Amino acid sequence: ELQMNLEQIEKGGYEHFMLKEIYEQPRAIKDTYRGRLLRDEGIIKMAGVEDNMKKFLNADRIIIVACGTSWHAGLVAEYIFEEFSRIPVEVEYASEFRYRNPIITEKDVVIAISQSGETADTLAAIKLAKEKGAFVFGVCNVVGSSIARESHAGAYTHAGPEIGVASTKAFTTQITVLSLIALRLARAKGTMSSSDYRLHLQELELIPGKVEQALKVNDHVKEIAKEYLLSTNCLYLGRGYNFPVALEGALKLKEISYIHAEGYPAAEMKHGPIALIDDRMPVIVIAINRGHYEKTVSNIQEIKSRSGKIIAVVTEGDTTVKGIADHIIEIPDTEEAFSPLLTTIPLQLLSYHIAVMRNCNVDQPRNLAKSVTVE
Amino acid sequence: ELQMNLEQIEKGGYEHFMLKEIYEQPRAIKDTYRGRLLRDEGIIKMAGVEDNMKKFLNADRIIIVACGTSWHAGLVAEYIFEEFSRIPVEVEYASEFRYRNPIITEKDVVIAISQSGETADTLAAIKLAKEKGAFVFGVCNVVGSSIARESHAGAYTHAGPEIGVASTKAFTTQITVLSLIALRLARAKGTMSSSDYRLHLQELELIPGKVEQALKVNDHVKEIAKEYLLSTNCLYLGRGYNFPVALEGALKLKEISYIHAEGYPAAEMKHGPIALIDDRMPVIVIAINRGHYEKTVSNIQEIKSRSGKIIAVVTEGDTTVKGIADHIIEIPDTEEAFSPLLTTIPLQLLSYHIAVMRNCNVDQPRNLAKSVTVE
Repeated sequence: ELQMNLEQIEKGGYEHFMLKEIYEQPRAIKDTYRGRLLRDEGIIKMAGVEDNMKKFLNADRIIIVACGTSWHAGLVAEYIFEEFSRIPVEVEYASEFRYRNPIITEKDVVIAISQSGETADTLAAIKLAKEKGAFVFGVCNVVGSSIARESHAGAYTHAGPEIGVASTKAFTTQITVLSLIALRLARAKGTMSSSDYRLHLQELELIPGKVEQALKVNDHVKEIAKEYLLSTNCLYLGRGYNFPVALEGALKLKEISYIHAEGYPAAEMKHGPIALIDDRMPVIVIAINRGHYEKTVSNIQEIKSRSGKIIAVVTEGDTTVKGIADHIIEIPDTEEAFSPLLTTIPLQLLSYHIAVMRNCNVDQPRNLAKSVTVE
Repeated sequence: ELQMNLEQIEKGGYEHFMLKEIYEQPRAIKDTYRGRLLRDEGIIKMAGVEDNMKKFLNADRIIIVACGTSWHAGLVAEYIFEEFSRIPVEVEYASEFRYRNPIITEKDVVIAISQSGETADTLAAIKLAKEKGAFVFGVCNVVGSSIARESHAGAYTHAGPEIGVASTKAFTTQITVLSLIALRLARAKGTMSSSDYRLHLQELELIPGKVEQALKVNDHVKEIAKEYLLSTNCLYLGRGYNFPVALEGALKLKEISYIHAEGYPAAEMKHGPIALIDDRMPVIVIAINRGHYEKTVSNIQEIKSRSGKIIAVVTEGDTTVKGIADHIIEIPDTEEAFSPLLTTIPLQLLSYHIAVMRNCNVDQPRNLAKSVTVE
């Protein structure tokens, strides 16, 4: 009973840790850039990056190794690094990387992402990368964790303890820390104009408030959840920066509601998955006004013409998608590169509410462990 | 009626084009390496590669762009190129590549894969790559197609006309042609020993016979299909070279049977998808005796302990998996790098039989076109 009460206190009034952690994201993101993003000076200060600037600037490419949700954060980072700092990025499943005699040289920078810092495959991957002479940079949440200790340098996400097995704030803070690194490198390499750089610093500081705003869709998302709680299948679509968000949204639904959900880059639909579409198949589409919006709109039209049900995450004020989709969820506008920090919020909430309504154990889903410390 | 008769003749006694094309694979693969693989001389002769050898040898990396099944062939090729010729390979969805200001230089080799040679996104991707100065090499089946014409050089797959919308022989011949290129580069770069090189040439010539052998599982696969034809969901797992085969197996089932199937690298199961496993979830696992077999066996055990149903593709003579899986499908042994050419066969047959039993239009699945010539 005492245990129960302690847990109640730890949940801070929320029904589940997961919901608490979803709501903690504005603060967690702020904690992640606090002391690192100095907007007035126009600088980004991260010791792990400064001290190894040469390694980063000489890198032929960056290889990101991770598993699960962290792998999705790595995919978002691929778009961000390539766009901001023009360094080719390769994102690898740690489990595949470690077992396939990967090509790694001393000119490679390997970034390992892991909330717990104990993910067995990721840990093995960085040991292999170190043996081959690569510089290894760790992005972990848990201070003093194995991956943090094994890395040559790193940056913590400062998300605070994450108890829910399904990662939420770990994901958004990983993206935040990786965005800071990409911006710092962009400045050092001169691949981003001074005004663009300042614009992005400024915008990043607005993100916590915008996440706060995005969280206001909660009641609306709960209503939508009611309509789809009996679904057996679900597709998630996005393009560019939001393609990995589609993967992550699908993973959340899988993990906690046990509904088979799958993410796809929107344009790949026509190469197979569209055959699945009928009137029982909900399709969640990220259709914000940035990044080839009109292409995404035409994907939505194709799905509608096959009677699919559309739940679209759109920029506030959107009118086009509103006229086509079955449901729209509005989020604030931001720079395209930071949009995953906002688009992911309603997807977290949707999974949460569906899982709760299906009476699933949200914080401790069946078959899953918080950190996968064995292979 | 005349039309019907012509179609009957064209199907050559098979009930569907897809089945005919599955059975054509031994011949198609042979046609693909005929005149190129000269085992007695120990050489591989491909004009498109020879004439541009400098481009390939100077390449910092190879970027493969493709969609759908061709994208899966590209993923297999990534493993083959990196292992054989030690050139870093990045595989990109053409639709994502073309819209994201990709980092391409004159030192990059871009390989575009497309059966029809008319895939709109892939065509746009190579035009972009050419603008940026990259050398573009096309791998197409249809002679004189747009991608073949737009590429600087290329190699045809010689699979013969593929009528079934779901690609089968296009996939295996793409892998064959890409294997030939990787072997040729390995020889030129000296990244493969002379004896290993000869071993691989020899083994590649044995593949058509082994595919023939693999096709003998047809009746057994049909029996298995009967048990799963009412499934709503399905997972496909593989590691290494056979991870892309898992993706491709899942795509086949999606395309023609409309069952929601998803492929995963086996080790990623623990990071989410394992939550989906219950006694109604069939899991198809590629568990051949090469490439970390024991790790795959332990993945199978985890799924069994959660009551999942296992259909395993194993090497003939396997005893371990036989004792755990619900069904096993045996295929001949081969070099790991060529194993996708065999493991994919039972997966094609499984999709085919399930789709036929579900009364689906196998050759012309709903919502799909043979080649996606619009975005």
